[in-house]
Parts: sequence; structure tokens; C-alpha cells
Amino acid sequence: MLIVQKFGGSSVADAERVMNVAGIVTRAYREGNEVVVVVSAQGDTTDDLIAKAKEINPRGSKREMDMLMAAGEQISIALLAMAIETLGCPVISLLGWQAGFQTNSTYSAARIKTVNSERIRAELDRKKIVIVAGFQGLNKYDDVTTLGRGGSDTSAVAIAASMRADLCQIYTDVEGVYTADPRKIPAAQKLDEITYDEMLELATLGAQVLNNRSVEMAKKYGIELEVLSSMKNVPGTKVKEVTKMEKMLIKSVAKDTNIARVTIVGLPDEPGIAFKVFARVAQAHVNVDIILQSVGRDGTKDITFTVDADAGERTVAALKELCENVGAKSVTYDTDVAKVSVVGAGMETHEGVAARMFEALSDKTINIHNISTSEIKISILINKEDADRAVAAVHAVFFEN
Amino acid sequence: MLIVQKFGGSSVADAERVMNVAGIVTRAYREGNEVVVVVSAQGDTTDDLIAKAKEINPRGSKREMDMLMAAGEQISIALLAMAIETLGCPVISLLGWQAGFQTNSTYSAARIKTVNSERIRAELDRKKIVIVAGFQGLNKYDDVTTLGRGGSDTSAVAIAASMRADLCQIYTDVEGVYTADPRKIPAAQKLDEITYDEMLELATLGAQVLNNRSVEMAKKYGIELEVLSSMKNVPGTKVKEVTKMEKMLIKSVAKDTNIARVTIVGLPDEPGIAFKVFARVAQAHVNVDIILQSVGRDGTKDITFTVDADAGERTVAALKELCENVGAKSVTYDTDVAKVSVVGAGMETHEGVAARMFEALSDKTINIHNISTSEIKISILINKEDADRAVAAVHAVFFEN
Repeated sequence: MLIVQKFGGSSVADAERVMNVAGIVTRAYREGNEVVVVVSAQGDTTDDLIAKAKEINPRGSKREMDMLMAAGEQISIALLAMAIETLGCPVISLLGWQAGFQTNSTYSAARIKTVNSERIRAELDRKKIVIVAGFQGLNKYDDVTTLGRGGSDTSAVAIAASMRADLCQIYTDVEGVYTADPRKIPAAQKLDEITYDEMLELATLGAQVLNNRSVEMAKKYGIELEVLSSMKNVPGTKVKEVTKMEKMLIKSVAKDTNIARVTIVGLPDEPGIAFKVFARVAQAHVNVDIILQSVGRDGTKDITFTVDADAGERTVAALKELCENVGAKSVTYDTDVAKVSVVGAGMETHEGVAARMFEALSDKTINIHNISTSEIKISILINKEDADRAVAAVHAVFFEN
Repeated sequence: MLIVQKFGGSSVADAERVMNVAGIVTRAYREGNEVVVVVSAQGDTTDDLIAKAKEINPRGSKREMDMLMAAGEQISIALLAMAIETLGCPVISLLGWQAGFQTNSTYSAARIKTVNSERIRAELDRKKIVIVAGFQGLNKYDDVTTLGRGGSDTSAVAIAASMRADLCQIYTDVEGVYTADPRKIPAAQKLDEITYDEMLELATLGAQVLNNRSVEMAKKYGIELEVLSSMKNVPGTKVKEVTKMEKMLIKSVAKDTNIARVTIVGLPDEPGIAFKVFARVAQAHVNVDIILQSVGRDGTKDITFTVDADAGERTVAALKELCENVGAKSVTYDTDVAKVSVVGAGMETHEGVAARMFEALSDKTINIHNISTSEIKISILINKEDADRAVAAVHAVFFEN
């Protein structure tokens, strides 16, 4: 079996952890598998490098920041390879470009164009464990790029897709995907399986288990993912197309408190006005989430939507000029809101999920500002202070009968 | 003018020093020169990386050690590039392989085969300052190699040779080459010029200003070198083929206390015996320096020679078996010796240099064990405890009339 294993920065944070990862890798190898391992930079290395750069130049060019940051994975792959050497298995480490990662030229947020996995294949044929630097690639100018946030997950799935791997294991500091954040909800249960779509909805909800791009890519190429713990040798959560658990109405309750609510008051009620608003927002590279449009006074209307908290100011700035041009009254934003969502492919064919959710919140007298639904997700916007109570109430009604 | 500048690890040790180097580089650029800069890893980075590796695997493979260590220069080139950005000059950093360094495959001590400087040339044509990672290259397997001790000097000279640079400046923490170690001999004088051959003799004598390979390469390709301080803006010492100072009898007095003396006692006095001894030593990859052969008793002879201190035990071990085979009595070594040398192209045409040196030592009642001379060097072996007094006495007679 060809397995791709990915370990994040906290999994290789120090010598002891690196040895632990070496143990996991060599176990899979000794069971007769071909093993390709993708590693992030050690957690403190990344912080150190950023600190060094900021001290010299708080606004260093992205090209040079990528050159700098890519040194982080170079260190961790070499260390992991040396750790595996001590366990007596043949091993070789490869940088992103050596492993065939070609990306576009958007420094600090590059997208993978292709993975030419010839070299990895050749090293596997020599019976070697192959350690690959995640998060990095090379653009058409032969310059080092990095993939941005969560990039190592994407690196792992890209290799799995390129090599048609049988399984892509994402090792993290949690044991899998839960019905809610287990640190907050003691009754949270680990899921055995979840579908790609459910995982995608969870990822956008701030449940930072898996990077979205990596799940999208896994879905596209049909790569089975497994999220599991690097510290505890127990099965994790499989992410795949169809799960045996479809009958389960919803899979998970999640909250996202890192959002801002932007409102445009008094827009003229005319055709195409919403298009103008969101075209301007898109121009500012802001992703919009929940949208609510309501009728205002005197033939005007209000549009409210949510964005990432750190995009709030930017969004308002982008809209200020537009508002003057179209004669809207004002643009405001606040961050005192939270989004709570339930996700589950099962709700497509079941009625009453929304009703049960709203009832649970009503019982706790939690006020709902906005509602947004998709086929497999219901999200509500509430006051930030109510977020934890809301998650507990919703989790209880669906999972704790 | 095309100038190659090289800065060692201590010159870029922290943010302040990096900014200082950026100042030197941009000054040369603003004077209208094309500037290529070779940088070593920050001093503490190298130490940190080695410590990280040793904690995991004290005997990690050289390939993986090279992968690890090469991250060091990657960090320093990116930081220096960002520092230069703050000073408003166009700049780009290049890794060893991006700068076209192709080496053989001797990991940790690779030799440069060629430097394909096309990319550097292209970036210079774009009016950029080009920062190159020293010490590293790529072998024919597309794997990262490092050049070993003093490698960044060699990187700099190799670029200068490949691009026919007008000058190669080696910035260090001293102001140039002195008539003796200025920390020990207050009267030591900085030399304006010195020949390649003199510099080579000094380098082998433990005066660690310039790496030997880099001087050899500079001589071969006729690259003018300048050794100068990164902390003080004053002219340094030029290293070139012929100097205006040839009339100066000797250029420098140096000592080397990091040596061991190995003696084989009672070798049979027969043809080819010395060959056998030194062939065996060469097999053990030990460089031999001063050799003294003396007639022993009963038709035997003794051979004494010096090696680097850390090669002493290895040398004795290598010779033990040989001694039994040829019937020699014993092999001994001690490290209680020092080598003091005077170097100068002028002594070729002058007599009496040796006599004046020996007289100076005799006046201080310093006992000479061995003597070795070349056309431009006289070395003597003395007790280690006499070394500093010997250097002072010899320096006084030649430079302090």
C-alpha cells in the first residue's frame, strides 16, 4: 500500500517529538507499505524566522519571506530523516522542488500547478522512506514559493493525488473530527467517518482540523483522508466520498468567533445594487459568508453580511466610496458576533433539523440575528457572548439525547 | 566594476550586523558597481542546527547534515536581502543551486565543479544586487551539498572567477593581514599587499584569515582579493600576484599550536621505507607537514613529522600495523609542540633570513626541535610553552628594528 503521512509543526516540535514521528513512519514502513512523509517546519522555527525578519524589515518582500520560511521545512525534513536513520530504515529527504512541486508565482500563497513525482517514485523503488518538505514549491522562474496557511496538508494530498496513493494520513494534535470541540464540550464524540462535503463545511466554520484546499483536492481526486493523532496510536476519522454513517442526521456542531458583521444601511432599492456591492467586496479580495438582505425605510434596503474578523476594516473602507456614489446612508461593522453551525449530509433528506436547532436555542433564550442554510449545513449568527452556550445546547439536542 | 563581496557568519550574526552589511553592500552598488554578495550562515544558526541534529542522531548521514546545514545560508541571504530592501536598492537572493553551483558528491566537503553564472548575470542586468548563499551547491543527483570548512570564501572566489570579476572582497572581523597576530603582538602592522603564495603559506600556518582553497583558486584565475573589516571602513590587505612590497624581506610571523608530532622509532634503513610510511598516512586522509628523518642506532632510522592535532591518534593507529610488519620499534605522538613560521616572497632572493630568525630564538634560549623551509617560508618546531615568546622575538627582529 502507498501511504502519504503528513505531520504538522507541533508534531515535530522537539527532538522527542521528531523521534515519535520517526516511530510512526517506520512502523508503517515495516508493515510493508511504501511511505511518503510530508513535514511542516518545527513550530518554534517558524516563529523564530518571522521574528528575525520583522526585526530587520517588518515589510520584507514576499519573495524573500518565502525564501526565508522555506528554510524551516528544510530543517525539519533533515532532522526527521536523521531520526529515521537511527531506527535503521533507509530514508531520504527532499525539498519541495526536489519532490517536483511546481506552483504559480503568488509568493506566500502559491497554488500547486503540478507535482512531478518521478524523483519520489525513484526513491520509493530504492526501498527508501521519502521525507518531503511541505508548504513549499518552485515557480517558473526557479524561485522558491510557499503555499500559505495550511499548505502542508495540501502538499500531502497533492502527492497522494499525483501518485494515486491508497491513503493520506493527516497527523495532528487531536484524535480526529469530533461532533463538537472536545475541549469545550466534554460529551463530544469522535466520528469514525465523515464525507468530503461535511469536512469542507466544518473547515470553513473555523474547525481548524484540515485545510480546505486539501479537502477539495482530496475530493476531486478521490483520495481517502484520515485525520489522526500523532501522540496516541488509535484510529482517527476517515474523510471519504460516502460514509456508512449517512443515517446520522448531523455530524458536528461548530462555532466561529473570528468574524465581523458588515452592514450597509439605506441602499437604493434598485436592480443590480447587490451585484455592485459584492463586486466591490470581491475586488478587495474579501470572502463573504452569510448574507442577509432586508427591506429598509423609504424605498431603501439594508444588506448585512459576515466576513473574517481581520477583513472587517478593509471591507468597510472598500465600500465607503461605493456608498457615496450610489447614495447609501452608512456602512458599519462590528465583531461582537459569532456563527454557530450544524453540519451533516443526513439533513438533506430529513426535515426538522432547523426546527430542533432553533428550539434548543430558544430554550436557552439565545437571540438569533441571521440564518443561512445549505443542503448540508445550517448556520446562525448570534451575539459572541452566547456562542459557547449555544454550541452546548445544540450539541445536547443532537448528540446527547 | 564587478565586485564580489563575501561576509562570514560573524558579520551577519544579528539584525544590527545584517543592517551594517547591507550598508556596505549598497554603498558599493550606489558607487555604480555591479555587486554580487556571498554570505555564510549566521554564527548561532550553524551552532543551533548542529545541536538539533546531535540531539536526535550524533552520527546523521552526511547527505542529511548537508540538507540541514544549507538551511543556515538560506536564512541569512533572505535576511540580508530584506535588509537591503529597507535601504531602497533592488535585490534578490539566490540559493547555491540557483546561483549555478555544481559540485561533486562528497557531502560535507564537496568541491565546486563549475559555476554556471547565467542567472546571476541576468539579475545583475536587471540592476539588482545579487545575494548568494555561500558554502553550498548541488551535485549531479540534484542533491544539496556543502563545501566544508571555509567554503564561503571559495564560493565567492568561484563566482569571481566564473564572472571575471574585477575584485573579490573578503570581509572579516580583522582589518586585513598582519605581520603577526595583532591580539598577541601589539606592534603587528597591517600589510597593504601580499602575494597569493605568501597568503597560502600563512593560511596553512593557522592564520585563519582566508581559506586555502579560495586563495589557490584566486591565484589560478588571477582574481584580486582584498581582506578587510566589516566593522571598520578602512582599506584592507590586497592579495595579488605581484606586490609593490616585494622588497619587504618577510611579510608575517605566524604560529600554529594545533599540531601533533608523530615519531616512528627504529625503522629499518632500507630503500622505500619512507614511501611506505607516508603512503599509509595518506590512506588515513592525514595531511603531513614538517618531516624530519634522522639516523638511529644499529642501522635503523627515525622519522618525525607533524600533523593536525586532531589527526594525531588516527595517524598513530594507522601506523601501528605497518610498524609491526616492517619491524619498527614504536610509534609515539605528542601535542606539546608549536610551529612558528616566517613567510615572505622576499626571502627567496635574500640570504640570512634563517640565521636572523635562529639568532632571535637563541637570544631567548628557545630550543628548536625541527626546521622546515620552502622558498618563501621558514618553519620551526618548538615547545608549545615557548610559542608566544618565539613569535614576539622573531617579529621584533624583522619588524620592530
